[in-house]
Amino acid sequence: MAAPSSNLSRIGLAGLAVMGQNLALNIADKGFPISVYNRTTSKVDETVERAKQEGNLPLVGFHDPEAFVHSLQKPRVIIMLVKAGAPVDQTIKTLSVYMEKGDCIIDGGNEWYENTERREKSMAELGLLYLGMGVSGGEEGARHGPSLMPGGSFEAYNYIKDILLKVAAQVPDSGPCVTYIGKGGSGNFVKMVHNGIEYGDMQLIAEAYDVLKSVGKLSNEELHHVFSEWNKGELLSFLIEITADIFGIKDDKGDGHLVDKVLDKTGMKGTGKWTVQQAADLSVAAPTIASSLDSRFLSGLKEERVEAAKVFKSGGGFGDILTNQTVDKETLIDDVRKALYASKICSYAQGMNLIRAKSIEKGWDLKLGELARIWKGGCIIRAVFLDRIKKAYDRNPNLASLLVDPEFAKEIIERQSAWRRVVCLAINSGISTPGMSASLAYFDTYRRDRLPANLVQAQRDYFGAHTYERTDIPGSFHTEWFKIAQQSKI
Amino acid sequence: MAAPSSNLSRIGLAGLAVMGQNLALNIADKGFPISVYNRTTSKVDETVERAKQEGNLPLVGFHDPEAFVHSLQKPRVIIMLVKAGAPVDQTIKTLSVYMEKGDCIIDGGNEWYENTERREKSMAELGLLYLGMGVSGGEEGARHGPSLMPGGSFEAYNYIKDILLKVAAQVPDSGPCVTYIGKGGSGNFVKMVHNGIEYGDMQLIAEAYDVLKSVGKLSNEELHHVFSEWNKGELLSFLIEITADIFGIKDDKGDGHLVDKVLDKTGMKGTGKWTVQQAADLSVAAPTIASSLDSRFLSGLKEERVEAAKVFKSGGGFGDILTNQTVDKETLIDDVRKALYASKICSYAQGMNLIRAKSIEKGWDLKLGELARIWKGGCIIRAVFLDRIKKAYDRNPNLASLLVDPEFAKEIIERQSAWRRVVCLAINSGISTPGMSASLAYFDTYRRDRLPANLVQAQRDYFGAHTYERTDIPGSFHTEWFKIAQQSKI
Repeated sequence: MAAPSSNLSRIGLAGLAVMGQNLALNIADKGFPISVYNRTTSKVDETVERAKQEGNLPLVGFHDPEAFVHSLQKPRVIIMLVKAGAPVDQTIKTLSVYMEKGDCIIDGGNEWYENTERREKSMAELGLLYLGMGVSGGEEGARHGPSLMPGGSFEAYNYIKDILLKVAAQVPDSGPCVTYIGKGGSGNFVKMVHNGIEYGDMQLIAEAYDVLKSVGKLSNEELHHVFSEWNKGELLSFLIEITADIFGIKDDKGDGHLVDKVLDKTGMKGTGKWTVQQAADLSVAAPTIASSLDSRFLSGLKEERVEAAKVFKSGGGFGDILTNQTVDKETLIDDVRKALYASKICSYAQGMNLIRAKSIEKGWDLKLGELARIWKGGCIIRAVFLDRIKKAYDRNPNLASLLVDPEFAKEIIERQSAWRRVVCLAINSGISTPGMSASLAYFDTYRRDRLPANLVQAQRDYFGAHTYERTDIPGSFHTEWFKIAQQSKI
Repeated sequence: MAAPSSNLSRIGLAGLAVMGQNLALNIADKGFPISVYNRTTSKVDETVERAKQEGNLPLVGFHDPEAFVHSLQKPRVIIMLVKAGAPVDQTIKTLSVYMEKGDCIIDGGNEWYENTERREKSMAELGLLYLGMGVSGGEEGARHGPSLMPGGSFEAYNYIKDILLKVAAQVPDSGPCVTYIGKGGSGNFVKMVHNGIEYGDMQLIAEAYDVLKSVGKLSNEELHHVFSEWNKGELLSFLIEITADIFGIKDDKGDGHLVDKVLDKTGMKGTGKWTVQQAADLSVAAPTIASSLDSRFLSGLKEERVEAAKVFKSGGGFGDILTNQTVDKETLIDDVRKALYASKICSYAQGMNLIRAKSIEKGWDLKLGELARIWKGGCIIRAVFLDRIKKAYDRNPNLASLLVDPEFAKEIIERQSAWRRVVCLAINSGISTPGMSASLAYFDTYRRDRLPANLVQAQRDYFGAHTYERTDIPGSFHTEWFKIAQQSKI
């Protein structure tokens, strides 16, 4: 490795939307001289200006890709933060022509893991190294400490390990929120599932809100108080914290609270969808995460829902809330907290098992406990809860499911009555809790040694001769159900 | 078109596993001379022998692909019934070398629709026509009248329309269960969704069985009676009929009923998985169908479930059934029937909306009511219920969802109390009803004009600046939630 020249930057970053700007400033802030480049040059100047204002950070801007690449010390390392898909290919094309053997490109976007694997291969043909690195934490995280999930070339990871360890969020007692994830597209895959879990968390919180507001009749002030209190206990997390914040914010364009004026349509990007599709591909049940995706889809059908509400109001005389049940607020709040927590365990069990299934398929050898550790800070799902997950995998790295870890099992047992009460209350009130009820059904399915799947398999053998196994005799069996049934009818 | 020669067969069929044999015999039985071919020649002889035994049907067997192709009148039409994927490509390769411009190949397997579109294109380059035709009905249906879903070349469809109209199941008042589905891979796609709906039906029936058996303590004799009765009313269908049959069959290898000896592990092929993945791709919520797939996945984890059951039995002192609730059997049976029917409406609403979404994406112009018509007979999901669906689309071809058709809405309203009772009873008994509860959550989400999605969108804007819409002012908004929340904390 050449001795670092003081004129050359340690690292480069291409793609200066807010995430890219913030990550570049974070790197510079940690003392690593950085060069930045963007196709739209005004973004470069903007970043340079911010670097000045935020403390004369060691950041140099370039309008020209060649000069940008040549400003880096060798082996050159460039992080891209551009939109997934074609823009990534375009950026690689623009930069790689000026790069040399042993140099490295890192994609920090939410890329589909197979694209990363394809690019890693074609980069290798040019002698270049490649990493797909999940970056979570939103704009704030990028600037002050994200959770980083780099996967791909281990050699490339080692080039910039010192930078990543300082740039990542720092969690007392468990260190920087970064680790080498594994080979190939594993970094992107893990980030994808992280986002799926994030979808699940957000949906479960929205359902808790719905039950407390629609059935419990809590005001926004009360909700603000409830979520603030929840954030002091087992649910302590970034998402609970910002939820508490949201309920405290008044509308600056009218009366009341802003949250009531926000339209009930949820947008999405691709990662939640991919998570659900991958779960199906790998034969892993992930109903809590799937329910959060479905809820986003249905939220988007606002106009249809308004029409449907009219049909059922006029047709059956029932409105949004079926019955106004009298509930004790304090009991309800306590029950909902427990239901939320128990559902969350199911959601994470699904996400972790999905990662494990992929790791086995691809031979990535991922460490689930280590993933829980690097999610403890920086990222959107950061929570004290993740420390419990880490400890569960420390106790037993081969845990079949978080549900059967002794500590989590105990927590579920303590909460299951409340959980069932909340879901039934919601059902009887006509308030849908798809995430909580899918989680409960998942739990009640997983913990049963005998399911009615025997009937389904009998049906399959009846009409399709798919055969079945027996509980008492080994082997594969087929029965002429139709013929036997016909005979008995005669 | 050349005049038919008496020495030449009207059509050919390649791939003589049971489905292929039966479809060939069906075609011959309807008076269309057929040539058959299979790579493993013993299957050819077997089929020829069956054709003799089943009434000297006009069927000729070939061991050689060239002689097989040349035995067909022009334009030659060959139906393949081989395993999806590579075997289809292999069969096409084997046969197409002997075929001529204007000849046609039809794939009757459960093929991924994009494979059909790829093959249709490459066939077109050779001047050959191509159809992907869904065939449903299992072995019995193939022999005596399946539901046929041909998609692709309309010209090719017209070559064999007369055959298909006679070979398909015949339903009084609504005709043969076949129609030209649409262009490209639409026939395969529609068959795929048909199978997804079939998964949903089977899961819902299994849940009804579980509640009646585990909570209602019904014996197999009682279940046999209940399902036989159900098959006289609104639930009249092939799957309810065979379920009744199954409960009536004794174990020939031991005491009691066979269904109790069948292992509770459900197998699957690819179509249910594809349906769920396509739903995610098209932003269509299909939670009932997804829950049936998840239930199959979880059924497969038999050993894990046995272990989990132990953990929760010893840890919290609760077994399979949480509480033995006293229920009135007759009321329960009536409630479960209503819950099953209401859930079924939701499942079909999801499947139909999935087909519509794909039709729009691909420009297939599919007619949903016509699909319901051709599913009324022959196929696994055949039911009187499909006539109600057909009528709903007759009333309004642009129906947003089956849920808001006036007749279905009325039926749901009449059943919703029973539906909620059953799901809550199951939850309080610890019996999972993932399909019924997912259906109910789907209904309660779809019929609400205001969902808690406003909170999710506020969260997204908080941490990711994803912006939101307002209920009162048009436009796109972003709020500095974090800054405002910090200020109010000072």
